[in-house]
Amino acid sequence: MEGWPCSIARTVDLLGDAWTMVVLRELFYGESRFDGFVTSLGIARSTLTNRLETLVSHGVVERREYRSDPVRHAYVLTEKGRDLFGVLAAVNAWGDRWMSDPAGIPVVMHHDACGHDAAARVTCDACGQELRAEDVSARPGDGYPSALLERPEVRSRFERAGRPDHARHA
Amino acid sequence: MEGWPCSIARTVDLLGDAWTMVVLRELFYGESRFDGFVTSLGIARSTLTNRLETLVSHGVVERREYRSDPVRHAYVLTEKGRDLFGVLAAVNAWGDRWMSDPAGIPVVMHHDACGHDAAARVTCDACGQELRAEDVSARPGDGYPSALLERPEVRSRFERAGRPDHARHA
Repeated sequence: MEGWPCSIARTVDLLGDAWTMVVLRELFYGESRFDGFVTSLGIARSTLTNRLETLVSHGVVERREYRSDPVRHAYVLTEKGRDLFGVLAAVNAWGDRWMSDPAGIPVVMHHDACGHDAAARVTCDACGQELRAEDVSARPGDGYPSALLERPEVRSRFERAGRPDHARHA
Repeated sequence: MEGWPCSIARTVDLLGDAWTMVVLRELFYGESRFDGFVTSLGIARSTLTNRLETLVSHGVVERREYRSDPVRHAYVLTEKGRDLFGVLAAVNAWGDRWMSDPAGIPVVMHHDACGHDAAARVTCDACGQELRAEDVSARPGDGYPSALLERPEVRSRFERAGRPDHARHA
């Protein structure tokens, strides 16, 4: 889907895989060694090799040699990879709200910077308010191919997106 | 992965699929009809049927009959589904930052509520600051199975997560 002029489609090429997401989670927990991922995830070695290669090829993870004889590698998030923390935190917060069992949430996130237990909230970078679908509209940006805009189903999408009530009363 | 005591793993069972993510995107754009998804996504009808069934079974999408002879259905986000907007907005913002071509971002999001073009920012719901991996630690919550906590690789994960420098200098 990488060819589509849509940052969601481009990103889910990478993230639209359950194993990739939990490998990223382990990287944020500080795991860096191949055998460590295998132990904590119970993932098949071939599956792990494949997912780490994808992450490295997208520039999200860097492979570093930490021992030469025998050769051993560590897998570390790049800046691009560390910037995915917000996505995982947003996914985690939604799962806490909608997928928890009655006993409570499985993992508590503590925001050391402010000293409180916290959940992610997705906000507008202009005003700081929580982003909700009904408050947002979309229009083609400079990176949207003009030829595509001549197609009626593309135009109608942006017209619908500009009518905030549509999605609620379909 | 639904059995894992982790809201990310539980959620990526649903979201860890590229087609599911772009079907959700179309739902937020206001699409509600089967043939509409087929036209805008170029998705195979069997694939679309499968993904819509998954979304309905998770309570994210509701199927409503809007015509009876012949029967026609509309697909509409539930409250649980609409609450996914933040996740898609966070994915979109990351894609804008890291996957855009030189021409610019493909789609501009306008926050009608404040009147500015905007990008999603993932913030702490306690203090409002942007959430970064190095400022966060994790501990088992009430929903974490106590038997699992006796396993050394599980304990070491939470111990690592409490040492904010680890992930940066692995």
